Amino acid sequence: MTLDRYALAPMKDLWTLDAQYERWLRVELAALAALEEAGEIPQGTAAVVSARARIDRKRIQVWETETGHDLVAFLWAIEETVGPDGRWLHYGLTSSDIKDTALALTLVSALDLVYGRAARLGEALGALAERHRDDPILGRTHGQWAAPTTFGRKALVWWDELRRIQTRIQRARDGIAVGKLSGAVGTHAYFPPAAEEKALAAFGLRPCSVATQIVSRDRHAEVLFALASAASLVEKVALEVRLLSRSEVGEVAEGMPEGSSAMPHKRNPILSERLCGLARVVRAGVSLALEDNALWHERDMSHSSVERVLFPQCFTLVDYLLARGADLVNRLVVFPDRMRAHIADAGGLPFSEGLLLALVRSGLSRREAHDLVSRLADAARDQEMELARVAETDPIVRERLGPEEIRSAFALRSALGNAPAAFDRVREEGYTSHGDRDV
Amino acid sequence: MTLDRYALAPMKDLWTLDAQYERWLRVELAALAALEEAGEIPQGTAAVVSARARIDRKRIQVWETETGHDLVAFLWAIEETVGPDGRWLHYGLTSSDIKDTALALTLVSALDLVYGRAARLGEALGALAERHRDDPILGRTHGQWAAPTTFGRKALVWWDELRRIQTRIQRARDGIAVGKLSGAVGTHAYFPPAAEEKALAAFGLRPCSVATQIVSRDRHAEVLFALASAASLVEKVALEVRLLSRSEVGEVAEGMPEGSSAMPHKRNPILSERLCGLARVVRAGVSLALEDNALWHERDMSHSSVERVLFPQCFTLVDYLLARGADLVNRLVVFPDRMRAHIADAGGLPFSEGLLLALVRSGLSRREAHDLVSRLADAARDQEMELARVAETDPIVRERLGPEEIRSAFALRSALGNAPAAFDRVREEGYTSHGDRDV
Amino acid sequence: MTLDRYALAPMKDLWTLDAQYERWLRVELAALAALEEAGEIPQGTAAVVSARARIDRKRIQVWETETGHDLVAFLWAIEETVGPDGRWLHYGLTSSDIKDTALALTLVSALDLVYGRAARLGEALGALAERHRDDPILGRTHGQWAAPTTFGRKALVWWDELRRIQTRIQRARDGIAVGKLSGAVGTHAYFPPAAEEKALAAFGLRPCSVATQIVSRDRHAEVLFALASAASLVEKVALEVRLLSRSEVGEVAEGMPEGSSAMPHKRNPILSERLCGLARVVRAGVSLALEDNALWHERDMSHSSVERVLFPQCFTLVDYLLARGADLVNRLVVFPDRMRAHIADAGGLPFSEGLLLALVRSGLSRREAHDLVSRLADAARDQEMELARVAETDPIVRERLGPEEIRSAFALRSALGNAPAAFDRVREEGYTSHGDRDV
Amino acid sequence: MTLDRYALAPMKDLWTLDAQYERWLRVELAALAALEEAGEIPQGTAAVVSARARIDRKRIQVWETETGHDLVAFLWAIEETVGPDGRWLHYGLTSSDIKDTALALTLVSALDLVYGRAARLGEALGALAERHRDDPILGRTHGQWAAPTTFGRKALVWWDELRRIQTRIQRARDGIAVGKLSGAVGTHAYFPPAAEEKALAAFGLRPCSVATQIVSRDRHAEVLFALASAASLVEKVALEVRLLSRSEVGEVAEGMPEGSSAMPHKRNPILSERLCGLARVVRAGVSLALEDNALWHERDMSHSSVERVLFPQCFTLVDYLLARGADLVNRLVVFPDRMRAHIADAGGLPFSEGLLLALVRSGLSRREAHDLVSRLADAARDQEMELARVAETDPIVRERLGPEEIRSAFALRSALGNAPAAFDRVREEGYTSHGDRDV
Repeated sequence: MTLDRYALAPMKDLWTLDAQYERWLRVELAALAALEEAGEIPQGTAAVVSARARIDRKRIQVWETETGHDLVAFLWAIEETVGPDGRWLHYGLTSSDIKDTALALTLVSALDLVYGRAARLGEALGALAERHRDDPILGRTHGQWAAPTTFGRKALVWWDELRRIQTRIQRARDGIAVGKLSGAVGTHAYFPPAAEEKALAAFGLRPCSVATQIVSRDRHAEVLFALASAASLVEKVALEVRLLSRSEVGEVAEGMPEGSSAMPHKRNPILSERLCGLARVVRAGVSLALEDNALWHERDMSHSSVERVLFPQCFTLVDYLLARGADLVNRLVVFPDRMRAHIADAGGLPFSEGLLLALVRSGLSRREAHDLVSRLADAARDQEMELARVAETDPIVRERLGPEEIRSAFALRSALGNAPAAFDRVREEGYTSHGDRDV
Repeated sequence: MTLDRYALAPMKDLWTLDAQYERWLRVELAALAALEEAGEIPQGTAAVVSARARIDRKRIQVWETETGHDLVAFLWAIEETVGPDGRWLHYGLTSSDIKDTALALTLVSALDLVYGRAARLGEALGALAERHRDDPILGRTHGQWAAPTTFGRKALVWWDELRRIQTRIQRARDGIAVGKLSGAVGTHAYFPPAAEEKALAAFGLRPCSVATQIVSRDRHAEVLFALASAASLVEKVALEVRLLSRSEVGEVAEGMPEGSSAMPHKRNPILSERLCGLARVVRAGVSLALEDNALWHERDMSHSSVERVLFPQCFTLVDYLLARGADLVNRLVVFPDRMRAHIADAGGLPFSEGLLLALVRSGLSRREAHDLVSRLADAARDQEMELARVAETDPIVRERLGPEEIRSAFALRSALGNAPAAFDRVREEGYTSHGDRDV
Repeated sequence: MTLDRYALAPMKDLWTLDAQYERWLRVELAALAALEEAGEIPQGTAAVVSARARIDRKRIQVWETETGHDLVAFLWAIEETVGPDGRWLHYGLTSSDIKDTALALTLVSALDLVYGRAARLGEALGALAERHRDDPILGRTHGQWAAPTTFGRKALVWWDELRRIQTRIQRARDGIAVGKLSGAVGTHAYFPPAAEEKALAAFGLRPCSVATQIVSRDRHAEVLFALASAASLVEKVALEVRLLSRSEVGEVAEGMPEGSSAMPHKRNPILSERLCGLARVVRAGVSLALEDNALWHERDMSHSSVERVLFPQCFTLVDYLLARGADLVNRLVVFPDRMRAHIADAGGLPFSEGLLLALVRSGLSRREAHDLVSRLADAARDQEMELARVAETDPIVRERLGPEEIRSAFALRSALGNAPAAFDRVREEGYTSHGDRDV
Repeated sequence: MTLDRYALAPMKDLWTLDAQYERWLRVELAALAALEEAGEIPQGTAAVVSARARIDRKRIQVWETETGHDLVAFLWAIEETVGPDGRWLHYGLTSSDIKDTALALTLVSALDLVYGRAARLGEALGALAERHRDDPILGRTHGQWAAPTTFGRKALVWWDELRRIQTRIQRARDGIAVGKLSGAVGTHAYFPPAAEEKALAAFGLRPCSVATQIVSRDRHAEVLFALASAASLVEKVALEVRLLSRSEVGEVAEGMPEGSSAMPHKRNPILSERLCGLARVVRAGVSLALEDNALWHERDMSHSSVERVLFPQCFTLVDYLLARGADLVNRLVVFPDRMRAHIADAGGLPFSEGLLLALVRSGLSRREAHDLVSRLADAARDQEMELARVAETDPIVRERLGPEEIRSAFALRSALGNAPAAFDRVREEGYTSHGDRDV
């Protein structure tokens, strides 16, 4: 269906049926080898089976029609290609041993891809931050002009969040890097714990300390949360691009905007809009993943159909979000001159705090100072005058502040004085587990 | 409203208006002290202000009616109690500096309470696991009898998951233990970075490396995920209690079941049902928390009303879930004899894998062995006979397996042989970050 | 907790414990009267019981502590006040008969309140639409200037949607106006169907055609959807206010904006932001309500704790959203002059479609015309010239279009020519079930 | 991806790219014809264009690569096949006119298919209800034996809910059967209202009374709610099948259960489990659809990528849910004898209400009677005796009730006496809008 529109290689190759069969076979063979090493089955079996086993999709299809069970069908089809020694395949195992272990392999690989995409977005954000480290821009809160900041700091905020996301991805990867080869209800009835450990180690997986029929889904929910967390950052970046590229603002523009069939003048930031939309789809997946966790007894299968849809969908979308998010950042057209011009055009209002604090320093109570500056700001707006000009003529201000103090309150340099401090902090920290400095 | 029904002390005390005001004042005073130490305001100010500042809810209310802004109202009311030196309060700060730092204090305390509740649930689960370590019970998958396991293993699975939840709570706590005293748009325009670090250290908080007007909400989303993860485990335990206490099963019973107004014989597991319901409410909070992350520019306020509802609600409910979940486990009535009796009554079906594997060992292909045992199981069900008895009379089985081999396939001991392995694994691991053994 | 902040009368009075007890008693008494009329219990009982029954919250509390069951506690406390005839209370009924019927009464009343709030928001929107019916404003799509429209049309779009919301509220009310007095599992074992119909009719409720122990929760989910639908419209209005009141746009302003503790010049649209946030909380309730529908057998109680939180919360918030949404609209400050000025300042770009179509009429292929106007628009932007001026000098345009044709393409009047048509359509329709005209 | 696994014809054919292009062309041509009839374009144009227009996917692909805009690419490719008259295509329209109108056509068709599937599920449920109308079964509440009911009543409850779902589907279809041909911001600037009405009428669509660039998404959210409501009923049915087919209950069985790779005796109700899982995926779609409603100004495009995923996914899954849900019901194996046997084996506990009410009739207070029967029930359970036998020996019971009264209290017939009443009610009602009887 139309998810294809967002599927990028190599992520999409992880989720094909062929890739799944190939992983299933790898797990069956690794289990077999470990069993043989443990002396549970005849020596030499693993070599024979590995050499002969072939995946025949047509035969699998035939068996699936007959049995209605995808892994049983797979198993019968493999056994056919091997001959008598094939009977040792799946010895002591249940379908979930194969499926959940193979799923862990998929998720680990998929998280590694996502981590790589995140790293490239991080590079893009870091470069954007450095490039515009000292470019002033109006801060805006509640959609209203606030005090000035720098454009580089916006990107640095994202970069900082990205570090946390990378940590979450790593932790989720660590949490999901577990397999399970402990049989029908996880008791190792016919497959020894030591063989499980051995077989999984070959894949870089740990065994579950204790399992039911399946690996506990709280681990998968953590994966989904890490994905949603990554999607949320891309949404944040894209939302800022949409806001700053509005016609009235025009401080940035998408590098490859889209036109309109009706209005030839349009240059729409549709990539940013699309990224915002897709992030929501991923976000909605977290509660589905959490809902999969509480199952009946040693397992019921209600989570299975959810996961068939959820995992490929969310990984495909996050992969796309991070890749296209990096494109968005790398191609972003930035207009520092307009940013500066807008500060200049704001009538000094963004500097009202400087005036307020100067009055506080002069001995006025904060409340009175606040009331006064608030009134002056209203007057400045009404009369379309500079706030500094209006302030100069106010008797209370004149009595308390000299011309230099007023000038200083409205100086961009003083308002931005410590803005680079964040860059220093971040540089000191490097990639720590949180990116936050210790107490 | 009716959330009160689930509010336990001391958690509920964290969310009162008085507690909020008290935290706001603490943050304002710590900031003031740090500013003074940094030489930004007159020496001695902090001592005077701290000595005089009082919280007067009535005056705050008056100012709130007038200004419509809760923190401004708080500030004016405090300033009134202090006199002239009060003008230095909030110097260089914005409302969010106070609110987000105070919120971090609340969340850290609340997570500590949740962690403690989780630990006590962990003790309850650990004790349950040890107590019933060797009590056999029918495993059930898809709601159908599967191979046997032990009741202790069920509890051990929960205990194992709880370790991961504790890790998630700790990480979320670590991630949210950040404050912010960097002014209107986070640039430290009038509040130096060093003073921020100093003031926050007094609370055990780190500063955000870089901030907008507020602390980034990806951190809060991680808190919500940790809560939902905890809720999900309680749901899992409660669901198992509901299932095992069904009239037809009766292998456990709630310690304090509830009656019915119409049917005096009823003993309903309503605590478990309630816990399942409340877990869903918490789960739904994760997507709300994620939705709060992408805000306009340096911040918009759409997240604020969400958080007013979301945080007290989800912490209250998780606190309740963990506390009552521990009660549920501690008071659980367990009937090991019925568990054993049900295994005995299952006609040997739960041991079908043993027979299958014995036939595989005898040289039969797995597919043929599977078909055969499947047919024998149908016959056993139809004729209401023991599977072992049916098997003994089957010519293929007779040809391949001796009586001892058949007996062994149906022996509970062999099916449970490695069940305690999980206990050994878990004991070896102790409380590591994941609870999983390393590769 | 802090939901109180959003609780308005009379909605909040519906959700108190006292109000609940009062409704429970009404239902018990109505059932009793119907039973007596059906000859199932001694004549005169209902009159005696009605005269004597009193609600004693302290005694209820005592019994609740003892029995752990809120309705049983209520019943024993009532029976105490009545004496021997009190034994006929609840005859043939189960707790859910009382609770679900009483809940229906609450929901019907609450929906009526919501409907009234919606109607008042509708009046506000209708008045806004009429007032600004002919005030031109830049249309904006993708955050970019599009063709002009009128401000009144924006409000008319909301008003039109409100009609659908009212329909949804009515339908949800109709769907939930059902009670149930059919006993423990809905079989009318000891309470005759005719008596059920009689008792419910007194409340304006229909009986469920068929019930389990409870009224099916698909009906309640529909109520939640109607609420979320209403919340979504308020979100839509509030979002537009936030966007149009951005400092760079300034075409509207909230009537009572809020200031900032740090920046005295700020006038923040915080009501709109708050409404956007609260709408999300309601939206999240729909999936919870849907999740309540599939219960075990004749009912399990997992939905109950969810509903205790969900219903008061969502009704309180929607009541607030609609009431404050109407305030927002009624107090909105609109600046038609700025809207006009922005059209004038847009360099003619919003009229690019007029030029495109004039070229198409002249015989140019649409694709060529689109490419040409797109290039002219880029030139106009680059040179900061009027698109009309740039077009006039283009040789292809000059060859194909006369000065009058170009002028006409850029005339606001022609771009808005049919804008009032929507008002005519809407006026013709009145309040029909959909507000849409028939085919 | 793996959604294919659940895609059934003819639903899946609605969502192909070819089907989309074909609908887009139909809308373009209908608009053209209406414009011609309105005298806006040269006579004869529509006939020429219709005759020549061809969809060439390769050319569309070429243009899409060049323009990045799917509908512009479509338009240029069509224009190429038509020649000069092709320039009149899309005259006065914007992409959303075509896309949203075409989407309405898709949704109407898809809802019709869903309605048909629902109707067939209704037939299956109705037949099941009638077939087992008088087969007694233990009612179960809270997973505990409650009073008896009949198996047919369970199915009747579902059938009753299905009527409401059909009503919701019809209403959603009615609400979404609107198109829009009113240009870039919905003002009919270059496309007259009358032509819009004419063109849409040909498709059985109404025009939006008033529109922005797009059709309001509250209508689409209602569609998603109707789908989720349908999914929820299937979940309810499937959950009951899972519960009643548990090994300990065995009162029904799936017609085509699935085996296990490890345990050949297993007969797992995996269809029911799968349906429960997929229903959750649909449920999660409602909040996404609601989130699409509040867009920026005349529209932003954040909803678009969501809808590309959401609509095909949810329609595909609901189509599957209803179709396979009907299969589940039609093939369900029901064991009335076991149902009866379980009632007989329940020791009379399910009849405790009968005894309670008999004691109330005898003059005992309800509370005393309740306490007494509760104690007797405990004794019966402890001693594994019939409750009737225990009651007979209790002095208070003996004093108040004769043997016939006790016998009657425990008679299945009296407990089920009015169970068929629901069938009568439902039969009387037929398919009304709600299925509920009027007051």
